[in-house]
Amino acid sequence: MLKSHRVVFVSAIAVLLLGLVLGFGAACGDDDGGTDGGGGGSGDLQDIADERGLTPDDMRHALQSFVPPGSYDPYVMIASGGHSGQVLVIGVPSMRILKVIGVFTPEPWQGYGYGDLYTEEILAEGNREGTDLSWADTHHPAISETGGDYDGRWAYIQDRANGRMAMIDLRDFETKQIVAVPNMQTSHGGMFVTPDSEYVHISSKFPMAFPPGSYSDVADYQENFRGVSSWMKIDQETGQVDLASSFQIELPPYSQDLADSGKLVSAGWGFIGSFNTEMASGGNMEGGESLEAGASQNNFDFLHAINWKAAEEFVASGGAEQLNGINFIDIETAVAEGLLYLIPEPKSPHGADVDPSGRYIVVGGKLDPHVTIYDFNLIQEAIANEDFEGEDPFGIPILSFDSVVAGQVEVGAGPLHTQFDSQGHGYVSLFLASAVAKFTLGEDVVKTDEEPFSLVETIQVHYNIGHLVTAEGDTVSPDDNYLVALNKWSIDRYAPVGPLHPQNFQLIDLKGGNGPMELVSDTPIGIGEPHYVQIIKADKLHGIELYEPGTDPGTFTASEFAIAAGEERVERDGSNVEVWMTATRSHFTPDILRLRQGDTLKLHITNVEQTRDATHGFGIADHNISASIEPGEVANFEFTVDRAGAFNFYCTEFCSALHLEMAGWMLVEPTSVTAVGDTAAAPVAVVPAEEHLH
Amino acid sequence: MLKSHRVVFVSAIAVLLLGLVLGFGAACGDDDGGTDGGGGGSGDLQDIADERGLTPDDMRHALQSFVPPGSYDPYVMIASGGHSGQVLVIGVPSMRILKVIGVFTPEPWQGYGYGDLYTEEILAEGNREGTDLSWADTHHPAISETGGDYDGRWAYIQDRANGRMAMIDLRDFETKQIVAVPNMQTSHGGMFVTPDSEYVHISSKFPMAFPPGSYSDVADYQENFRGVSSWMKIDQETGQVDLASSFQIELPPYSQDLADSGKLVSAGWGFIGSFNTEMASGGNMEGGESLEAGASQNNFDFLHAINWKAAEEFVASGGAEQLNGINFIDIETAVAEGLLYLIPEPKSPHGADVDPSGRYIVVGGKLDPHVTIYDFNLIQEAIANEDFEGEDPFGIPILSFDSVVAGQVEVGAGPLHTQFDSQGHGYVSLFLASAVAKFTLGEDVVKTDEEPFSLVETIQVHYNIGHLVTAEGDTVSPDDNYLVALNKWSIDRYAPVGPLHPQNFQLIDLKGGNGPMELVSDTPIGIGEPHYVQIIKADKLHGIELYEPGTDPGTFTASEFAIAAGEERVERDGSNVEVWMTATRSHFTPDILRLRQGDTLKLHITNVEQTRDATHGFGIADHNISASIEPGEVANFEFTVDRAGAFNFYCTEFCSALHLEMAGWMLVEPTSVTAVGDTAAAPVAVVPAEEHLH
Repeated sequence: MLKSHRVVFVSAIAVLLLGLVLGFGAACGDDDGGTDGGGGGSGDLQDIADERGLTPDDMRHALQSFVPPGSYDPYVMIASGGHSGQVLVIGVPSMRILKVIGVFTPEPWQGYGYGDLYTEEILAEGNREGTDLSWADTHHPAISETGGDYDGRWAYIQDRANGRMAMIDLRDFETKQIVAVPNMQTSHGGMFVTPDSEYVHISSKFPMAFPPGSYSDVADYQENFRGVSSWMKIDQETGQVDLASSFQIELPPYSQDLADSGKLVSAGWGFIGSFNTEMASGGNMEGGESLEAGASQNNFDFLHAINWKAAEEFVASGGAEQLNGINFIDIETAVAEGLLYLIPEPKSPHGADVDPSGRYIVVGGKLDPHVTIYDFNLIQEAIANEDFEGEDPFGIPILSFDSVVAGQVEVGAGPLHTQFDSQGHGYVSLFLASAVAKFTLGEDVVKTDEEPFSLVETIQVHYNIGHLVTAEGDTVSPDDNYLVALNKWSIDRYAPVGPLHPQNFQLIDLKGGNGPMELVSDTPIGIGEPHYVQIIKADKLHGIELYEPGTDPGTFTASEFAIAAGEERVERDGSNVEVWMTATRSHFTPDILRLRQGDTLKLHITNVEQTRDATHGFGIADHNISASIEPGEVANFEFTVDRAGAFNFYCTEFCSALHLEMAGWMLVEPTSVTAVGDTAAAPVAVVPAEEHLH
Repeated sequence: MLKSHRVVFVSAIAVLLLGLVLGFGAACGDDDGGTDGGGGGSGDLQDIADERGLTPDDMRHALQSFVPPGSYDPYVMIASGGHSGQVLVIGVPSMRILKVIGVFTPEPWQGYGYGDLYTEEILAEGNREGTDLSWADTHHPAISETGGDYDGRWAYIQDRANGRMAMIDLRDFETKQIVAVPNMQTSHGGMFVTPDSEYVHISSKFPMAFPPGSYSDVADYQENFRGVSSWMKIDQETGQVDLASSFQIELPPYSQDLADSGKLVSAGWGFIGSFNTEMASGGNMEGGESLEAGASQNNFDFLHAINWKAAEEFVASGGAEQLNGINFIDIETAVAEGLLYLIPEPKSPHGADVDPSGRYIVVGGKLDPHVTIYDFNLIQEAIANEDFEGEDPFGIPILSFDSVVAGQVEVGAGPLHTQFDSQGHGYVSLFLASAVAKFTLGEDVVKTDEEPFSLVETIQVHYNIGHLVTAEGDTVSPDDNYLVALNKWSIDRYAPVGPLHPQNFQLIDLKGGNGPMELVSDTPIGIGEPHYVQIIKADKLHGIELYEPGTDPGTFTASEFAIAAGEERVERDGSNVEVWMTATRSHFTPDILRLRQGDTLKLHITNVEQTRDATHGFGIADHNISASIEPGEVANFEFTVDRAGAFNFYCTEFCSALHLEMAGWMLVEPTSVTAVGDTAAAPVAVVPAEEHLH
């Protein structure tokens, strides 16, 4: 049809082959092209700074945080995503977001909850009876530990909005399990793992009407509402929670808050802060006062100290009841068995953090300008001596405050959370002062010549800091280089992107714990609102690059539906059509699916590639199907085709130069045929070929 | 209960007041604390570089890309999110993600599609009859223009997977409209705005069975399948699409691909590339060949040239038919009216990009190592002279290739997309070569002493580049500083985060268009797969910081449901309960909602704050409700409470030091009461107060 032209075409296949050599061959090995021509050396650094308006401090900070193209960040941050329901993976110090992991919220880029049966099942596990949940408010991640040190195997995250938790496998950075925790309506800061990942702990935020499933007015708050401390048993092979081997301890209807695991000297114990020991329940249009006032009356709330090792033994001995599928120890029993003690903590505490030595527990009382530092050894003495100052309304013994406090440090307005270095310092976030205060712990751990229990220095942050984190900060051996301030408000730190502002993560250089602290960079977080994060050394992570051929990602073993190229087939049994399909650059086989309206399609797709990054997606027009099928993975779908039509399906990944050609057709023939012009959805008109063409 | 202690407490209120002064007062004005102590000057730059292993090139690149804490990026990138269904907002040159905007996929952090009625309605608009869609594959954003220059008012984005588009208001960076475009099943690169934002254009990707709603086998592809070019009329007040004033032009069943708007000399015209003029439809298990082979047979595909200005006049004259609610011009009419021409373009083209002068249209044929550069003036001459080399099977005239080509440049393997600077250069992505090639256009626009239509230089990227973008690159006056390569594969550029790899955005310094191009930084994109992006000068954006008090974000006018503090009320009418609630730091009023099982709750929440960043969220335990209510905003909900229980609700934002206390209770009394111990979901046991307490 077209006449010849002066252009000499290279054969398409030759170009493709050339491209494979040039592109893929050269891809992974060569140096960064083009930089040589730019003029090396540092002689022009000042010119660049002048042109861009960088101060000498700015220049230093640029060098402190820059990770050159192709280099890896030495640390990785696992961050909660707040009410996005997800988890973020961020490189440190570059603060680049490496990945957002779909956890509680369906995520189509990852094919998470959009037709892929395995991921739909994970999400469905998170529904308690009568609920249908597709979001969460993730607050507190916990990386698995061995010997009190992050081991990079698994991460756990809870849901503030609903009583749930999830487990992420750090081999493929995918969610493998969501657990709807029984007897708990909401959760908060109680997510931590024990030093050898025996348990992951999750406690309730607000208490719920007990027994679970009942109704109670909040007028009967003290009588009818209860919290729980849940010790979820971790399967050491899979990292998943084994509900039957887990246990709960009933707690009073306070609001249990941040929590941390004992370690080393305090191994076997867990600590949970609380507020609202007033047991206020609001009612600001019913003659009562708002919770913020009602819950701020008492001078002391209670740190809960739980002997989980003893509780585990009690459960093993058969002492626990069963309540909705989990071992349950009521308050009376917990007290009788010496599993649960209360410790006064000043005015509406928020954080409760155990130092690397395991000896000190630091509490920030958000309405008190001090941090209060407890000594685990003194706690044990007080318990042994029954040095109690009374018991709470539920009969739980309250340790004498004076007998267990090692020291207090006046740090400033609104202390919340504390992280640590290895030099005996604590770093506490000050929400109201928008600052981080550095202070010393006891003399046995302070490795400098600073006074124990003294304020060292303060640095301003921007603004309204919630949590903060140091590298390896929850382990027995923190690194002493990086601290990140997780500021809840950014206000004027970024060009306006509408009334919903990003959060502001600020990287602070700790200089080996020797200070002074130095603000290095600002990073906006405009995808969810991270609450807490942990920072792990990157070399402790062992993310896989590929799945083995034919892998079921749920088990990391061979899928029963895996096929190799050439084994594709279609089987029809009545209205059930089962298809074994392969995906490779740049086609699906088969690329036409022939169905009749009302058929049920079982579709198995094997990505037969074994090239790193050769992911194929699978999406179908006008159907809510989106899968991400990584090299070696097998994905499965099952759905009924209730609408007739010719629906385009395609690879949603830009997988090759011919990625747009990686498409096919799902042809759903109508069950009954009507005349052309009847455009009702079903039955559908079938157009004779000759009629439409002009 | 507690005895007095040695600790002297500062009054909680005093601390709070102190905090307000220290925290909020100091928040927006002061310098970054702490940096003074760090030792200024550049004397220690080399020390830092040595410690961190930075080369002299690395040091320079750090300074080229670093944006100091609190400073703003001079450019903002609006990026598609690929099959995440969202849009990303990224600062340039820091490459920090400022925000992910919920568009086609529900996003709970933004309260988008989780109970907030307005956002649920936007998402529902995107459902055609019989579909229920909660994701998309966004590819090509388009920022609104005035005089061919980005004006920062609105952004548009289409859905590759389904025939849909969305409009984002760049005042609040929120999605305001989703349009299910009639007569189009899938879409792709046709998203662009005309130079004065008269229309936003969207064309089909794969054709669909026509007439829409009918079924056809792909065996009758040529006869029964059709594409469309859709010109969606933009309301100049709201930026939203007015379907009734929009029009479509029927197209042959080729795969219409990337497209661009004419500008200046070519204003009034639009250009759409295509492939698969072979009209192949696969069938690789039916004796056919895969589409990647079938669609790669012809030496030429067709660039579609559309005279939209003439089409607009034709529609205004009443010449168009109506098809499913939109003005429709069939191929025969389009040809007869001189609205549609075809131009041969070499071998499976991908990009079709109009240069800043409007004269040149650059096409990258992905199976041809050249870019082909068409001259709009020659196209007009050929049309005037009827210099046709024939017509396609649908009767559309094909312009003579030789008569309209200004030049070709051999650039390398797999040329895809081209962007421009103001010096007469094009920058084309080479997927197969993993490179960017810089070349010159015609001598009338080349402002250097380089030869017209010649290759200038090439830079390696990592890896498999799809699109690329220059700052202000689609306008009549591009800036000449930054280019970003949007690489689809990252392979080994980041520490492994599982088999699903992030994308890799590489920042390249263009040095005023004078080169040499220099690779500056790598940025992982681990949230969706951006395809195309646009970069706008930040000072053209005018994001608002707050909503006016009581604003309906759908209209930016006063909501009928807005109230001020003190005006809160509850009205019950039978089983309908309507509540006007306020949110402020740190309480909701009312904070107890008293309902009976089966009631329908209409809830209106006004965030009565007028402080920047004082967003409040609203979530309810075990219900799928999550709202984000920015200062001044009114959000509305309506749902039936079918389960009895006491459900905690709370502010999902860390809004204040007492954010955890910003909570309340939705009490849903059961309709019938049973004995304690019957824990069935409904009816629900009501526990007498005295029974539970130990």
